[in-house]
Amino acid sequence: MTYDGEHVLRTLMAEEGLDAIALVPGANFRQVYNKNFYQNERSLVILLQRDGESLAVVPALEAASFDLIGFEGEVFHWRDNDGAESAFQALGDHASPLRIGVEGQTMRVMEHHGLKRAFPDAEIIDLHKAISSALRLNKGDADIALMRRAIAISQDALQRTFEEVRIGQTETEIESLLLKNLFAAGAEGMAFAPIVVAAENSYRPHAKARADYAVKAGDALLFDFGASFGGYMADITRTVFVQHCPDEAAGVYETVFAANTAGREAARPGISAHDLDDIVLSVLEASPFSQFIRTKTGHGLGRDVHEDPYIMRGNHQRLEPGMVFTIEPGLYLPDKFGVRIEDDVLITDEGAESLTTFTREVVLVA
Amino acid sequence: MTYDGEHVLRTLMAEEGLDAIALVPGANFRQVYNKNFYQNERSLVILLQRDGESLAVVPALEAASFDLIGFEGEVFHWRDNDGAESAFQALGDHASPLRIGVEGQTMRVMEHHGLKRAFPDAEIIDLHKAISSALRLNKGDADIALMRRAIAISQDALQRTFEEVRIGQTETEIESLLLKNLFAAGAEGMAFAPIVVAAENSYRPHAKARADYAVKAGDALLFDFGASFGGYMADITRTVFVQHCPDEAAGVYETVFAANTAGREAARPGISAHDLDDIVLSVLEASPFSQFIRTKTGHGLGRDVHEDPYIMRGNHQRLEPGMVFTIEPGLYLPDKFGVRIEDDVLITDEGAESLTTFTREVVLVA
Repeated sequence: MTYDGEHVLRTLMAEEGLDAIALVPGANFRQVYNKNFYQNERSLVILLQRDGESLAVVPALEAASFDLIGFEGEVFHWRDNDGAESAFQALGDHASPLRIGVEGQTMRVMEHHGLKRAFPDAEIIDLHKAISSALRLNKGDADIALMRRAIAISQDALQRTFEEVRIGQTETEIESLLLKNLFAAGAEGMAFAPIVVAAENSYRPHAKARADYAVKAGDALLFDFGASFGGYMADITRTVFVQHCPDEAAGVYETVFAANTAGREAARPGISAHDLDDIVLSVLEASPFSQFIRTKTGHGLGRDVHEDPYIMRGNHQRLEPGMVFTIEPGLYLPDKFGVRIEDDVLITDEGAESLTTFTREVVLVA
Repeated sequence: MTYDGEHVLRTLMAEEGLDAIALVPGANFRQVYNKNFYQNERSLVILLQRDGESLAVVPALEAASFDLIGFEGEVFHWRDNDGAESAFQALGDHASPLRIGVEGQTMRVMEHHGLKRAFPDAEIIDLHKAISSALRLNKGDADIALMRRAIAISQDALQRTFEEVRIGQTETEIESLLLKNLFAAGAEGMAFAPIVVAAENSYRPHAKARADYAVKAGDALLFDFGASFGGYMADITRTVFVQHCPDEAAGVYETVFAANTAGREAARPGISAHDLDDIVLSVLEASPFSQFIRTKTGHGLGRDVHEDPYIMRGNHQRLEPGMVFTIEPGLYLPDKFGVRIEDDVLITDEGAESLTTFTREVVLVA
């Protein structure tokens, strides 16, 4: 194995003074073991110790699949009829860590309680950020190739959907078109439940498509979505207009476009996330629409759709080659409309490359 | 509101001696508030108290969307730049529950730790089963109508995919066909990452499609997947054969089909989950293939793809009208193939109805 995720985690344990790190299925698990498992009613936990042997709690149903990951350590299986308790008990009998790092955004209370019963004296520390960053903050060429594919699929689907939008379709009908086109283009999954919202519904950053609103001329129509491919996520937003773009919307769009452009142009190795957000937000703040800012500039993107680095004021982390994140300034006019333009940007040795290349000019549909 | 989920939960608090229940986005949240939120790096928690006012920790980004759910209580917003800490602190200043029930399969360590910091003296109890069952165990007509729609979409996609399978396609290519057909048929999402596996890969109950295996004549080809629609999940498995069905596979298929049939015929109000599993497994156990049993009969199905009632020996819960669950016996021959036939069954007043109606006869594809 050229990439040794377990070694990366043991190094982190030494740095953080941990005795163990417990992993559950998810982005980090897939990074380390090149395979994933469902997170359902069954607990699956790998306990990597800094010094002792590796241990795992594995549902018997997954035993044959778990055998494929090349895990070197002792595995405690449990069957549905018995529950996971005895497997966690066995974990407790084979180790006695006092400080355990876990992925707080992924591990559930169920596994937390299992670990607490196994190790009553242990402190369980949320090290989601440190674990994820150690494993996945800087992407390599293979990672980027998969992200380009996820993005290409997303952009193909968006183009096709633009061609199919008609006056009178509801938001949910347009969302269905997008979904159909995503999977016809080769998506393996969705990075998140897509946001396809028009007119006043678009002013909420995470709004949901309505089945009872048909788009009409002059509406803003916002698409925020992404395909997943090979375990990597795309995340793109474009805001288009139905048949024509009203004057107020044109002014807002121009402002958001300027902020997006400023961000893409400023992104380069060495700049801090704080400074990048500051550059983007300053464009919005200097506009007549400054009271309609609702969000920071962006978030890291990779195997998780939201991960480090978070592009926001207060985060003084410096950007480095291999980091990928969104630049997604937006303006949200309550009860009127919202405009957001979101790109996925890779920091390169020389500067930055927008992996998303879909036009940012005003697009009219239908 | 005809359905008052908060009232249901307060009744549960009284029964369980709880001071509060904390809900996070997911199936139960959607059941109570008819809306859902992303579970990402931002914590959103509603704290319902048995006696005191309702409280919520809500990301500022979601404030406008949260306003739509009709929540009556105090809301503590937090901004990305500041983190959720102050909002959890405010929660701690406004309540002092000593026993808090949470959804252990849904709530993450991150929210668990937030609650522990807000309420250092509180006991946090995993009541996932009780909370989910109180809210969602018995489905009504509206729920069933949405499940029928999710199932119809799934069955349409399966039929179309069968028509498109050809010798020489890889498992991942066939999976792509299924995905394309699912979303063309109107799926809003997937209940889970589909399982499309052939030949020896099908012997692992939760295997993953291979990009490097092309199906050939005589292969078993197993599809386990489901559309989601209106927040409800379908879950169907059919195992077909490429061009012809080898003799050994035919014997296995016949046995699994007999077990599936026995389960569907035995399902009725009043039977226990234990007895139903026993009837299904007894068919497999009495066959020449008894050593290839790996799984229990099934799991409940609804807003979650795995929920109560679990159809397994040891679960003496009695089945009641409105419960929906899978009957999915299977046989898994190591390094050869697996066969599973899965239906979604509704307990009715008189007996049971299989909501999935796709043929269970041997199907040959390609």
